[in-house]
Amino acid sequence: MSATEHDSQLNALTEKMVAWRRDLHKHPESGWVEFRTATLVAEELDKLGYSLALGRDVICEESRMGVPSAEFLAAQKARALQQGALEKWIDAFAGGFTGIVATLETGRPGPTVGVRVDMDALDLEESSDCAHVPEQCGFASINHNMAHACGHDGHTAIGLGVAHYLIANKAQLCGTMKLIFQPAEEGTRGAKSMADAGVVDDVDLFMAIHIGTGVPDGEVICGSDNFLATTKFNVDFHGVPAHAGGNPEQGRNAILAAAQATIGLHSISRHCDGASRINVGVFNGGTGRNVIAQHAHLQVECRGENNEINDYMFARSKAIIQGVAQMYEVDFDIDVVGAAQRSVPSPDWVTFIADKATSLQRFKQVHHELKGSAGSEDATYFMERVKQHGGQATYMIFGTELAAGHHNDKFDFNESVLQNAMVLLSHVVMDAKEFA
Amino acid sequence: MSATEHDSQLNALTEKMVAWRRDLHKHPESGWVEFRTATLVAEELDKLGYSLALGRDVICEESRMGVPSAEFLAAQKARALQQGALEKWIDAFAGGFTGIVATLETGRPGPTVGVRVDMDALDLEESSDCAHVPEQCGFASINHNMAHACGHDGHTAIGLGVAHYLIANKAQLCGTMKLIFQPAEEGTRGAKSMADAGVVDDVDLFMAIHIGTGVPDGEVICGSDNFLATTKFNVDFHGVPAHAGGNPEQGRNAILAAAQATIGLHSISRHCDGASRINVGVFNGGTGRNVIAQHAHLQVECRGENNEINDYMFARSKAIIQGVAQMYEVDFDIDVVGAAQRSVPSPDWVTFIADKATSLQRFKQVHHELKGSAGSEDATYFMERVKQHGGQATYMIFGTELAAGHHNDKFDFNESVLQNAMVLLSHVVMDAKEFA
Amino acid sequence: MSATEHDSQLNALTEKMVAWRRDLHKHPESGWVEFRTATLVAEELDKLGYSLALGRDVICEESRMGVPSAEFLAAQKARALQQGALEKWIDAFAGGFTGIVATLETGRPGPTVGVRVDMDALDLEESSDCAHVPEQCGFASINHNMAHACGHDGHTAIGLGVAHYLIANKAQLCGTMKLIFQPAEEGTRGAKSMADAGVVDDVDLFMAIHIGTGVPDGEVICGSDNFLATTKFNVDFHGVPAHAGGNPEQGRNAILAAAQATIGLHSISRHCDGASRINVGVFNGGTGRNVIAQHAHLQVECRGENNEINDYMFARSKAIIQGVAQMYEVDFDIDVVGAAQRSVPSPDWVTFIADKATSLQRFKQVHHELKGSAGSEDATYFMERVKQHGGQATYMIFGTELAAGHHNDKFDFNESVLQNAMVLLSHVVMDAKEFA
Amino acid sequence: MSATEHDSQLNALTEKMVAWRRDLHKHPESGWVEFRTATLVAEELDKLGYSLALGRDVICEESRMGVPSAEFLAAQKARALQQGALEKWIDAFAGGFTGIVATLETGRPGPTVGVRVDMDALDLEESSDCAHVPEQCGFASINHNMAHACGHDGHTAIGLGVAHYLIANKAQLCGTMKLIFQPAEEGTRGAKSMADAGVVDDVDLFMAIHIGTGVPDGEVICGSDNFLATTKFNVDFHGVPAHAGGNPEQGRNAILAAAQATIGLHSISRHCDGASRINVGVFNGGTGRNVIAQHAHLQVECRGENNEINDYMFARSKAIIQGVAQMYEVDFDIDVVGAAQRSVPSPDWVTFIADKATSLQRFKQVHHELKGSAGSEDATYFMERVKQHGGQATYMIFGTELAAGHHNDKFDFNESVLQNAMVLLSHVVMDAKEFA
Repeated sequence: MSATEHDSQLNALTEKMVAWRRDLHKHPESGWVEFRTATLVAEELDKLGYSLALGRDVICEESRMGVPSAEFLAAQKARALQQGALEKWIDAFAGGFTGIVATLETGRPGPTVGVRVDMDALDLEESSDCAHVPEQCGFASINHNMAHACGHDGHTAIGLGVAHYLIANKAQLCGTMKLIFQPAEEGTRGAKSMADAGVVDDVDLFMAIHIGTGVPDGEVICGSDNFLATTKFNVDFHGVPAHAGGNPEQGRNAILAAAQATIGLHSISRHCDGASRINVGVFNGGTGRNVIAQHAHLQVECRGENNEINDYMFARSKAIIQGVAQMYEVDFDIDVVGAAQRSVPSPDWVTFIADKATSLQRFKQVHHELKGSAGSEDATYFMERVKQHGGQATYMIFGTELAAGHHNDKFDFNESVLQNAMVLLSHVVMDAKEFA
Repeated sequence: MSATEHDSQLNALTEKMVAWRRDLHKHPESGWVEFRTATLVAEELDKLGYSLALGRDVICEESRMGVPSAEFLAAQKARALQQGALEKWIDAFAGGFTGIVATLETGRPGPTVGVRVDMDALDLEESSDCAHVPEQCGFASINHNMAHACGHDGHTAIGLGVAHYLIANKAQLCGTMKLIFQPAEEGTRGAKSMADAGVVDDVDLFMAIHIGTGVPDGEVICGSDNFLATTKFNVDFHGVPAHAGGNPEQGRNAILAAAQATIGLHSISRHCDGASRINVGVFNGGTGRNVIAQHAHLQVECRGENNEINDYMFARSKAIIQGVAQMYEVDFDIDVVGAAQRSVPSPDWVTFIADKATSLQRFKQVHHELKGSAGSEDATYFMERVKQHGGQATYMIFGTELAAGHHNDKFDFNESVLQNAMVLLSHVVMDAKEFA
Repeated sequence: MSATEHDSQLNALTEKMVAWRRDLHKHPESGWVEFRTATLVAEELDKLGYSLALGRDVICEESRMGVPSAEFLAAQKARALQQGALEKWIDAFAGGFTGIVATLETGRPGPTVGVRVDMDALDLEESSDCAHVPEQCGFASINHNMAHACGHDGHTAIGLGVAHYLIANKAQLCGTMKLIFQPAEEGTRGAKSMADAGVVDDVDLFMAIHIGTGVPDGEVICGSDNFLATTKFNVDFHGVPAHAGGNPEQGRNAILAAAQATIGLHSISRHCDGASRINVGVFNGGTGRNVIAQHAHLQVECRGENNEINDYMFARSKAIIQGVAQMYEVDFDIDVVGAAQRSVPSPDWVTFIADKATSLQRFKQVHHELKGSAGSEDATYFMERVKQHGGQATYMIFGTELAAGHHNDKFDFNESVLQNAMVLLSHVVMDAKEFA
Repeated sequence: MSATEHDSQLNALTEKMVAWRRDLHKHPESGWVEFRTATLVAEELDKLGYSLALGRDVICEESRMGVPSAEFLAAQKARALQQGALEKWIDAFAGGFTGIVATLETGRPGPTVGVRVDMDALDLEESSDCAHVPEQCGFASINHNMAHACGHDGHTAIGLGVAHYLIANKAQLCGTMKLIFQPAEEGTRGAKSMADAGVVDDVDLFMAIHIGTGVPDGEVICGSDNFLATTKFNVDFHGVPAHAGGNPEQGRNAILAAAQATIGLHSISRHCDGASRINVGVFNGGTGRNVIAQHAHLQVECRGENNEINDYMFARSKAIIQGVAQMYEVDFDIDVVGAAQRSVPSPDWVTFIADKATSLQRFKQVHHELKGSAGSEDATYFMERVKQHGGQATYMIFGTELAAGHHNDKFDFNESVLQNAMVLLSHVVMDAKEFA
């Protein structure tokens, strides 16, 4: 193919990515209800000739976390169908099994290379400010309390772009390609269920990606290691109500228990091996001022610079909650609704990718690593699984200009990142055979 | 009037009371939005020839507590008009000034006798169980989240019944009669504003009433003294949000402050002079698991066996909240939304009423007092004001069979209590001249 | 006996009481180490002809609370011998069994009447102020950290005075007399062990006494009911030490547990049936600023207006301590070191005593009861035991002028109370046969 | 000097160092009362010809932290004189100004090189176990509750050894030598007062040292950077006592305040920039179980991976303590009794020293740095001061076999470290002119 032909194809594919991204942005779907998204992705990949594994085949039911109620799942499936989800594929995803693995086997010797993107939106009302580009350009969210304010619409579009680019350059491919479209990354709920289903057990070389996160426009991080291991959990205390004036001693005070738990959790000792975090971010309890509260609900997360520190934080959290329940003679439930690990990128693989990124002459700057701990990412489950099976893995970040920070209702990004990301990922996949 | 005539009149009036009670039950209005109720009460009293003082004339604006937002007040006024509130009277009550004082001056020497009833409903969804009598008989609440589950519909009907009965027996009256229809007793929000407006400053002899409260059907308590002084208040802590993983030290944690305040409040020392109470009954804070909470809201009440103990509890509460805000470097507001006092019934006045009750031969049992502290009542503000001005005051309870406890969504009472209460109150008023 | 003879005998006996009181005051002995006191009391009673039961015969070993270490007991026994304790009796009391029951059976029909006094001093350094009367008159404590700052020296002297008076008036006695000299009332540690040994099981009529307590000089309370039931307990938390800088997560923080327990205990809900109390009065923990504390010790007491409320407070306390230990993964011990009950004086018996007190014309005022809850008294164990066996019991207070409050290092009392108390107690015992 | 002469001199000096060390070990003196030690050191340095600055000339009074009471200082001065402190020098150190700076000016051009050693012992009873070498060899501590269980006896001996060695090699010296003998390093109390007095303001090149700390025998760390910045402080809460049964509401509970403060302090948020620490290591409050506690005392320390984090921890601590005092309406004092900084060794200077160490062929291994945060060291005040004035500074650790860990009552070290340390320090000082 000539350079001109290549450019023209690239431009056409980029237009497609922008269109996909905007369509997804307008129809955002939160974790485990990406029904419309998943059917459209499946259709696209199927048309390209990928071999598909869907739903329960790629998601381990017991490992799912933070799955909405059956009622919500059913209502969202109906909503998706109204918004153009494809009947042909939807049953495969019913009940919140909205994951896809697309495989392309070349028959030629070579490594199995995996690329993972995520598809879910946030529980957030998108801004309707007329200066907000999606609002201006008509692709702002039409779904109540759902919005692509983290860029996963872009990730999905990039994944589809890579799928097209690889098929267009099929002749150059060796080994096996696996494209993984994951649900429910927000709240770090989905990756574990796909990793536990074994979808990356045969992957030799693995890449997960994110756009934005403060990395300057046009730069790329080839081995981001700024994630903390985390456990997200809800705590419910169940007490006994009583009239606060009439017979307070007959109550078992769920609010008092939850308040003690909150303070107890925040008093867990620092760990000498590195950073730890704890936060009770939501506290809701009680029904009336004059009633000893029967119920209190906490939304909590702990984190650690490595998995051991996070395990320590969660173990101490459980001991504290159990002890507080004993103090106030109330019952309790702890419900784990999300989790992610720490996973260090494989240095040789990072170097290979960084060299490739440099050679493409597309990036203003190519970084091996990103310092400073921040959030958490459940792609780490894939990374750890790959490494446990002898493979190499990394997490990449493609810098792009943001209209507002992630999780902000005015979040938006410079769409030029789509092409940059798609091209680098595709070239790494195509050239992975060169990696010893 | 012959006994037969009297019986026939009494039966007719009782039928009216039942009808009023059921109409009010069907159209319950919560505190400060008793627009329909107040206009109907005003119309009835006006027709009977009472001299009326309404709205701002009987309610001190600064003393109102727990008043809803202007939006809610306006919306409820509109709702009331749709449900038959009288245009003629409604402007007097606009903005949440839903109180009425009806005066009848006989010109004959004699004491000024005051009777207070309350008109407001609870914020509660009434049961739609088909076995629930109001549902069966078609007078269950048609207003969302409002229900007469405490019997104030009955109190208002009794007040109107007394108004009629007195007019019917006008010839026997001496001195001055004041009938007080109070808004917003629930949450003990309304009485203080009417007492502060001076409406009982000229009252020599005062009665406030309640039906039910566990007193057996057909019995009467002439001097109930089982109320605790109380202060109801909301606390809002305002912090600074921050990402719990990325930069927790930049947050100022409103949930942590509110949790410490909750525990601190519950640790206030007992008082050697008598019973005290404290309860954080509602705790709501935070927006997300991974955000240091910017805001937390508490609904609190303290109580005391006397006003000094309650003052001690509230003073200590304020010190604790202020200290906690300082600990966590957050801002705070304390908003007093209700209050009631302890008030001991005047023993001679109680004895006079009890003798009158006994002589009527209507009650299965007549009690001077009721033991055991329980809830709180803001009629105590009227009682204390009357006593401060040299008068005598009491609080009476008319026993009646209840379908379910007060504040339960299936609350209902035996309507025979209406006649009993109306007759005793009327006779005490008529004969008050006998009381030295 | 002539009135003159009687007066002369009374004066002589009063001089003896003053001498005993001053000797005991100079040689105070704290709870369970009243070795010198007990041997002198035993010798005096033996000489008078009482039949004695001593030590383990009147003290149930398992029911003793707050007993000092074996080392302390042994050292104090040695100290007592040096200060004149009688070898003849001391072995009966060895090991902290310092109780005496002196019985006089008349052989004549009549009730069994019991009188209980206590003998122990406080753990307190007596004032050496030259204006302090015991210092001035040379009978201030010579024992380090022990002082009769509560008047038990007077109680013992009164008990001996009664013993003499009864023998001097032996001819008038009927039935059986039991004089009970109790150790370790301070901290409410001793009475239960004597009551459990059954020493009052045959007592029909019982009196325990105190002097002072704010009752005006020359007045007497015949039925004091101002005691709260109480449980005194120590809590020890045992954690794991760690360097606070180097590896804090390896510690299990006993101070943090004890702090949470302190707050948790103070947050126990009020009880609707009456007054309750809780206090963590002593908190000692930790060995160094830079060490996660391995150990923390709390001294706690709870109280209740009746035994059920106190039981509720103690049960809640135990749940809280257990829960806190679980929270912080530390071990704990709860050691009950004292306890007392609520016991209502028997009204008829109180009336009989009050009539007797009035007839003696010695008291400025005679009161049936004392209002207002204050401290606790373990004589209540005897009272409850007597009442359970069908007897009647009371607690009496003899007013006297105090130099400073009880438990103050300058405490002293007007010794004229000794004669007043002795005479009334003796006459009640002598005339108890008149009580139906 | 021939190699043989040199060896023989070295052996003689080593014997002296061992003798000094053992003498100091037998007569340990805790912080600010190193009276005997300081006079002996001054005498030795004076005899060698150093120019001395002593006491208030090298210690800024206001910057001293954790100074004992005047009584204790006076008593310890007396004790020191009895144990051989020299009258000649002692007045210079009276009142707890036990610091010495010995200066040697060569008159030849060259840098000013500073070496700091510390002289104080710990508040600890040394083991009397017969297997404990100091006990066996007769140089165990004879001072009650004072022991050289951290090795500062060795540091002082090394400092004196260097002083001798430099004089013996005076001809080779250029520039200026400053030997700093610091009091009160334990609790990080003394260095700030010497740094604030300006004693290192003219120092170009600075070394502080420690022996042991887990570094293997015969190895040396030339640039230890494993210290956390720290602030050590005491908190005293002053409340109002009251009888816990009689009138608890009249108390202002210092124990409750201190317990809340303890929990509040442990709940200070983690800092995203690095490690932080907080510990309430000692908690003592209250006088009796039945008294609302009037007083409670906390010993606290916070730390941070850098000075900003430590400042954050201390600022938050102060806010919490102030807030808690407000909550419980008690007074409080915060008394800073120790502090240290983070100070990064100057890399070039570390390299110079490491090269020198290697060239000496005395060390099994020479390390540039030591990783892992642990304790704190107030030599950092000197280091920061030197660097602020344009100099270079480092902290060195000489590995040695330990009988037991630092601060353990059986601590002892292999005395061969004395010679190793003395030789390296001396050679670095002598050759410092080579360092650009």
